[in-house]
Amino acid sequence: MPIANQLAPAWQEAAIASVISLAKAPDGDFGVINKLADVMAEPNSLQAMFDYLSSLPEGKLAFLERPRVGTVDLPTLAQLPADSFGYAYAQHMLANHLNPISAGPVETDLQYLGAHITETHDIWHVITGCNTNILGEIQLEAFYVAQLQSTRFWLALLTKNLLKAVVYDIEASSQYMKAICQGWQLGKQAKPLFGMPWQQLWSEPLQTIRANLNL
Amino acid sequence: MPIANQLAPAWQEAAIASVISLAKAPDGDFGVINKLADVMAEPNSLQAMFDYLSSLPEGKLAFLERPRVGTVDLPTLAQLPADSFGYAYAQHMLANHLNPISAGPVETDLQYLGAHITETHDIWHVITGCNTNILGEIQLEAFYVAQLQSTRFWLALLTKNLLKAVVYDIEASSQYMKAICQGWQLGKQAKPLFGMPWQQLWSEPLQTIRANLNL
Repeated sequence: MPIANQLAPAWQEAAIASVISLAKAPDGDFGVINKLADVMAEPNSLQAMFDYLSSLPEGKLAFLERPRVGTVDLPTLAQLPADSFGYAYAQHMLANHLNPISAGPVETDLQYLGAHITETHDIWHVITGCNTNILGEIQLEAFYVAQLQSTRFWLALLTKNLLKAVVYDIEASSQYMKAICQGWQLGKQAKPLFGMPWQQLWSEPLQTIRANLNL
Repeated sequence: MPIANQLAPAWQEAAIASVISLAKAPDGDFGVINKLADVMAEPNSLQAMFDYLSSLPEGKLAFLERPRVGTVDLPTLAQLPADSFGYAYAQHMLANHLNPISAGPVETDLQYLGAHITETHDIWHVITGCNTNILGEIQLEAFYVAQLQSTRFWLALLTKNLLKAVVYDIEASSQYMKAICQGWQLGKQAKPLFGMPWQQLWSEPLQTIRANLNL
């Protein structure tokens, strides 16, 4: 189902303003990122993302079973074998001083879509091997666009990063473009990550999971 | 020589405003495009582009000899053999109702840089095979970023197109990303197009020129 060609002018203005605010903000300003997320989560594009994902066998199953990451105990995961996904995830979270995000209960498919994407972001970093520096974030943003399609939020983040390069750091443009293309190709080549039952996979070897996902 | 980390805040505001104006304008509004070009042609990044291009043998020669496209007579070029570059260029210009751009006399390297890029834009379309529709323009914008580095103007156009997708046409995002990556890879794989003596090549077979440029 195609999205209505034009959303309301007020939404368009708010969308542009939220990208500009983020471009002007220091990296990692979560207040501004949350504002962007709120604006970009308009129901038409969420529905288009749902339609696309649920057209894939993996996505269809995900919306049926709605697997959640659940409670994550990093010290316990850090005791798993060194080649396991859970160990790699724990190391990633501890090294970057991150806490697992719990996205709360969901009742609808669109709520599940948002909650699952939110709570698996750090997992996607680990599984794809995308770093948490700006180049890794750009790679992962392009990966999301390749995997989710119609994702205003991740495309907006990518756009914001290119705008920052134009205005503040043009000499970064080659690295940014390279990161975009690497992330895009990885996202196209990989099987869908959306809806994977990650909480069942902590003990599995990371390399096995990656290989199964064509990563 | 790295660009001064930050340009003046007034320039930064003007740069962001020019991207936003272009995103809000209808496609092909040359008044707004010219405004963007004026803002983006700040001397620090032009100097960085010059430094990069003149570090390449082809670019060094280009700045030494400053080849210009000169006067172009489309009806005459249209009489050349059907496999020639000149014939393909004439057909491209006539089919798209375009007139050759004459960028005027130049006295400095940075003036040559700007004039040559301006007057060869349609030639780059023909040589790269990038269409004049939005996907072809996006491909070519990414090609420019790959070939010129530090080009605020072409990266700004790319950014504007991604912003338009975020706000007005999110379902175009996959096609746009594919076009970006195609153009980027083509630009990286090709030999430098900057400074080619195109006016000496009208009679050459287009395929020979492309092959010589790894296109």
